[in-house]
Parts: sequence; structure tokens; C-alpha cells
Amino acid sequence: MGEVNKFIKFAMKIESVDFFYLSMPEVLNIGDGSQDALLVRIRAGGIEGWGECEASPLTSIASYVCPMSHSACKPLKYSVEGMEINDTEDIIKISDNVHENSFDLLQSDHTLSGIDIALWDLLGKKLNEPVYKLLGYKKSYPKLLYASQLFGETPEETFEKAVKAKSSNFKAVKFGWGPFGKKGLENDIAHLSAAREGLGNDINLMVDAGTVWNESVDSARIRLPHLKSVQAFWLEEPFINLALDSYRQLAESLPAVPIAAGEGCSNFVQAKTMMEYAGIEYIQIDTGRIGGITAAKKVADLALRNNITYVNHTFTSHLALSASLQPFAGIEKDNLCEYPFELKSLAGDISKTKILPDDNGQVNLTGEPGLGITVDTQSLKKYLVDVEIKVNGKQIYYTPDL
Amino acid sequence: MGEVNKFIKFAMKIESVDFFYLSMPEVLNIGDGSQDALLVRIRAGGIEGWGECEASPLTSIASYVCPMSHSACKPLKYSVEGMEINDTEDIIKISDNVHENSFDLLQSDHTLSGIDIALWDLLGKKLNEPVYKLLGYKKSYPKLLYASQLFGETPEETFEKAVKAKSSNFKAVKFGWGPFGKKGLENDIAHLSAAREGLGNDINLMVDAGTVWNESVDSARIRLPHLKSVQAFWLEEPFINLALDSYRQLAESLPAVPIAAGEGCSNFVQAKTMMEYAGIEYIQIDTGRIGGITAAKKVADLALRNNITYVNHTFTSHLALSASLQPFAGIEKDNLCEYPFELKSLAGDISKTKILPDDNGQVNLTGEPGLGITVDTQSLKKYLVDVEIKVNGKQIYYTPDL
Repeated sequence: MGEVNKFIKFAMKIESVDFFYLSMPEVLNIGDGSQDALLVRIRAGGIEGWGECEASPLTSIASYVCPMSHSACKPLKYSVEGMEINDTEDIIKISDNVHENSFDLLQSDHTLSGIDIALWDLLGKKLNEPVYKLLGYKKSYPKLLYASQLFGETPEETFEKAVKAKSSNFKAVKFGWGPFGKKGLENDIAHLSAAREGLGNDINLMVDAGTVWNESVDSARIRLPHLKSVQAFWLEEPFINLALDSYRQLAESLPAVPIAAGEGCSNFVQAKTMMEYAGIEYIQIDTGRIGGITAAKKVADLALRNNITYVNHTFTSHLALSASLQPFAGIEKDNLCEYPFELKSLAGDISKTKILPDDNGQVNLTGEPGLGITVDTQSLKKYLVDVEIKVNGKQIYYTPDL
Repeated sequence: MGEVNKFIKFAMKIESVDFFYLSMPEVLNIGDGSQDALLVRIRAGGIEGWGECEASPLTSIASYVCPMSHSACKPLKYSVEGMEINDTEDIIKISDNVHENSFDLLQSDHTLSGIDIALWDLLGKKLNEPVYKLLGYKKSYPKLLYASQLFGETPEETFEKAVKAKSSNFKAVKFGWGPFGKKGLENDIAHLSAAREGLGNDINLMVDAGTVWNESVDSARIRLPHLKSVQAFWLEEPFINLALDSYRQLAESLPAVPIAAGEGCSNFVQAKTMMEYAGIEYIQIDTGRIGGITAAKKVADLALRNNITYVNHTFTSHLALSASLQPFAGIEKDNLCEYPFELKSLAGDISKTKILPDDNGQVNLTGEPGLGITVDTQSLKKYLVDVEIKVNGKQIYYTPDL
């Protein structure tokens, strides 16, 4: 038996890596990230794993197949194809290789994200364990969902959205983007009041500014009393990623409103920097952007040591949701989960499996192997975007069969 | 006359933005960034400006033409094509628009870089001023060139390269990448000694580790005595970009060796973070990566206030070299210039104009309009890579005519 295992240990190599660009027929100019998707399918040893990049699909595909520019600007395929995939160390090694071989290729961490997620899914299926157990967690704790949605175009619309979310039994609701921060203080106050009025007093209200104030502390600071008066649970992304001084100055301003940020981080050191220098209380990580589950788990570990609450950032499919939950599934105190509430049909159709809230408004991962999500390849066919890239007459990418 | 100017003020709009992917016939797996190039040509009002992205060409092209994913993940063309280009404020506005419209598109700052550079070149030609004057500098000060080259594969080869650089009249020479940091301490010591021996005692010796120690302070720290003993002018990029703790701990270690870094910064706030938290003495900015001349000038201004020396990072053409010199041309104390010394023929053939050192080993920008560089379109034709990208059967990019 030992001999057999040893044989298996050296037997499994990555056989294929396929990217699928999916899109709604029409993509609107709104802050809704569920309008397109980039799925990654990796096959090895008769098993397949699935991942998702929360990233520009065409640009990510190009970064995977592009010709090498120099030793530190290689296409991602260089570090992935044909590699061994037998244990968790192999995944970490692939991640390290991508960083070494592609660190001058800016898009690489977004592309790596889907690859890394697919590898964890694949390995979990091979070892018959959920990903969170491969990450070292003994069990997965339930998380309180918060419904994540855009502000309405008008305060009235925001009110209606709040009422709808309340009637859907959510215990926490986030409003973000849309007109917030863009049409003056009075308009923002009206939206905040409408949101609170629609939700009543018992539901947590998060507010997401979507980096609208860039680096301007004053623009954010004058909103603090109004955020406080509607009991905002947090203010999210008032500034662009890594605007450390702005973040810290706001965090030290009164009235105190907890600050959340992190979705813009595209690797571990960026998230580390935000946790150590930005004064934030919540670090929000999208596994589809930060380099996948490998990088996200490092962030969750450091957040735990630094007494910062880790929260997933998810605005797309339930495949992405599972991938975003795994890295902090076993940390009991990190008990919040962003839950996309207004998904386009594409994002809903990606998986047969759904992660649904229980009567307490909580969600928990199952013990199913890998990510525990079955991708619905049949229903995806109508969303598939046909892409062809030729370099010097040679086809270097075309959309594979689902 | 006032009426005429007013008319001109509103007359010039961006008419075309063309990307040219150029490559050597063979790209080697070495740290030489001059093996391919991505040029940008922008036309408006009968004038054309040229820029260069220090970035993966195919990936950057894809980020320019890709379909929109959502409001913050738009292709760069959305923020550029048809925009007014009459004064410096218009360039800043385009840069701001790219950041707002594409901040979830990771590749965007690398792509913006070439666009922004071409816009400054174009505007300088229109207003008949060198770019550094448009940036507010009254004059351009000479900079001491340092020859930038790779370590040899063996200490003997490093020695020969040092002798050659010395005989070429350079007063400062940088060795980097290659085997350094990868083959053990003894090998590194041998290379450092060989470099110093070949250069003699009167030439400044910079050492570039190319992020080889990732975040490991100890790996870098044990080299400090040896760097000190060869009088290293600086140690460059011992760690990955934004590994703030590692950088600061090394900067505080003895024996003291000045630390340089920054080429990995892809926007202003990253460079700001490195300057304020990493303990570096030199900030090295590549205008082809950081978002162009607009972002680089902001870094130079902040470096001046923070008493950090600004140095260009340039490993490609003389077009890129001019673009990298403009942002700090007028700062007299920032008197160093990275000068690529081993360019592949492609990078040399990009421009008819060359920026050559004088007898003192110094270089200075001329007062020629724009970047002062004439692109040699004829000689580039043999390097042109033919690219075609189709989405759902529709051709969204093909290589334009030079």
C-alpha cells in the first residue's frame, strides 16, 4: 500500500488548463461584477477542478497565453502546465513560481487566482476532503450573511431595496456604489436615511463607498456623523487601495465608524500593508483577485494574529463564494460573509449547487470534497464568449469546449 | 487672436491610438527587458506622440480593447478615445478617468503608461516645448549615467563586463539579476569582488538583487558586510515590492548599505507607501509601468519633499529613457540616471535619436519639443509582431500599419 501511494504521489500532473469567458448578452455600465465571468477548468488524473477569476476575462486569458517578454515577464502557463499536483505543497509551489516568473506581468495575480482556486478544488476532490480541511481547519463555522447590493439610483429606490432585503430575512445588508459619494452630501444623507428606514433598527447596515473619494480624507470625514446616525456597521473602501495615510486619518477621526477595505489587494503583501498601516478593522479579500485561496489563507492567518476581522469579498457566483469562504471557514470569530443578492442569471447559472442561508440568516460550507460546487456546464453554453487570439498567424488561444 | 486660440483650445481631440507589439526573433529566458516592446502612437490635430509600455505587450493590448466587465472594469480605450487633448489638465483628466473606469482591471496602469507618455509627447510637440517644461521645470539638469547590465553567468564573466563598462567611460555601473542570490553566498561574494575588481576603485558600483530574497530579511542581511566591503553604492530590490517590514528591517541593519527600490510600483500610492514606510534612500520609477509621466512626476515631487533621491528605472529604448528622465529633469540634486548598456537591436532601432553621454559620463535632455525622440518606423517593421484578437467573431484588434 505504501508503494502504491508512493506511485500515486508522483503520478498526477496538470494535464489541461482551460479558460472560459462567459458574459451576459448585455453588460451595463454599473458596479455589478456578476455580468461576466472567467472560469478556469484544470484536469489531472481523471479529476477536474474549477476556479473563477474576478477579473477582466480577455486580459487574463492574454496573460496566460502571451509570449514571454523576459525572465520575470512570462505567461502564466509557463508556471502551471505539466506541473505536479499531488499535495498542498504543490499548489504553494505553483503560486510561488508564478510570482517568480511573472512578477513584471501586472495582470498575473488576477489570473493566478482562478488557477489556484481550481487547483484547491481539484486536490480536495482527489483527497476527498473539503478545501478548508486541506487548509488545516478542523471544521467550518457558520457565518452571518450580509446581502450585498448597489444603492438605488434615488433614495426611494434605495428604500425599496432595503425593504426587499429585510423581507428576505437577511440580518445584515450592505449598500454600495451607484450614486453614493457622487451627487453631494445631501443626496448621500438621503440614501443613508432611506436605507436605515427601509431596514428598520434591527438589521446591520454596511456602507460601501467604492473608492469614490480617492485619497480625500475630508470628503469621507464629513460623512462620518451621518454614517454614525444611521448606525453604519462599517464604512467600506472610502479610498483607493493602499492610500494608507487617508485610511488611517479617517480611522482616527470622530465620530468613530469602523473602516473596512481590502478587495483591491492583488497579493498578500498588499493586504498585509493595509492591515498594518491603514487602521482598518475589517479586511475584505476576494480570492478571485488576491491570487486565490493560497494567498487568502495567509491573509486570514495574519488577520487573526492582528485582531482584524477577515471577511470575504464576493459579488459573483456561488463557485466564487465557496472559494472565498474556505480561507476563513475555520475561524469562529470571523463570522460575517458577503453574499451577492442581485446576481445576474449568468452568475446564478454557473453552479447547480447553491450556498443558501438557513433560518438564522447564516451560511456554512458542507463537508463535500473540494469546493463542494458542481459547475453546470450545460447551462453555461449560452453565455460562452468565443475568443480567438493569433500571434504571427499562429492561434495561441481559442475558446475550448465546455 | 484670443478668438483663434479659443477655437484651437476646443479643436484637438484624440483621433487614433495604435499599439505596436515589437519583438526580437528570439526571446531568451534572461532578465533583459529589451527583448520586446510595446509602442503606443497617438494622433491628434495632425501631430503624433509616441509612448512605450514596459509591460507584457499582448496582455496590455488586451486590456485596451477588451469588452467592459462592469463600471470599474472597463477597457482603457473607454477613457482615452475621442478625448480632448489641448493642455496638461487634459492629460491628467485622462489619467484620472482610467483610474476611475478601470481600477478593477489590474493591467491598466502598465497600459496607461505608454498612453500617458505618448500624450505628453504629443502635447509637447503641439506647444513646441519639451515635456519637462510642461511639467513646470525651467531647465533640465545633467545626470550622471550609470550603466545597467546583468551579472555574468560566472564571476569571470562579471569581471569582463566590468572591465568593458569601465573602458566605455562610465563613472557608475550597476550589476543585477542573473545568478546573484540564487547560487549561495560564496558565489555572490565572488561576483561582487569580480565586479569591484573589474571596475577599479573610482567607479560607483550598484547592485540589483531583482527581488530574489522575496521577503527574507536574513538572506539579504548576511550579504551586507560583503556589499559594504566592495563599497556598494546601493543594494536594489532585495525584496518584492511593498514588503515594507523586510525593507525597513534591512535598512536599519548594520553595516549600513543604502537601499533602492520602486520599479515594481504600478501607481503613485504604491510609490508613496514605499517612500514613507520602507526606509529606502532611492526611489526608482519606470514611467513605462507607473502610469506614465503624470504619475512619475507626482512621485518625483513627493521624493523631493521626503528627501529621497529619485532615479529612473530604464532597461529598454531611448524613447523610454527620455520618458523616464522628464519627470525629474529639473531636480538638480537627483543627478543619477539608469542607462541601459546591453540593449538588444530592437530597443536601439526604436529611435533615430539617441541620448548619449558626454565626456563627463553625463546625459541631458535637449530642448526639443515633446520627448525629443524621433521614432524610426521604417526600421521597426522587421520586429513587428502580427496580433489579431477576435471576440464572438468580431475582430477587436489587429496590428495597425506602422
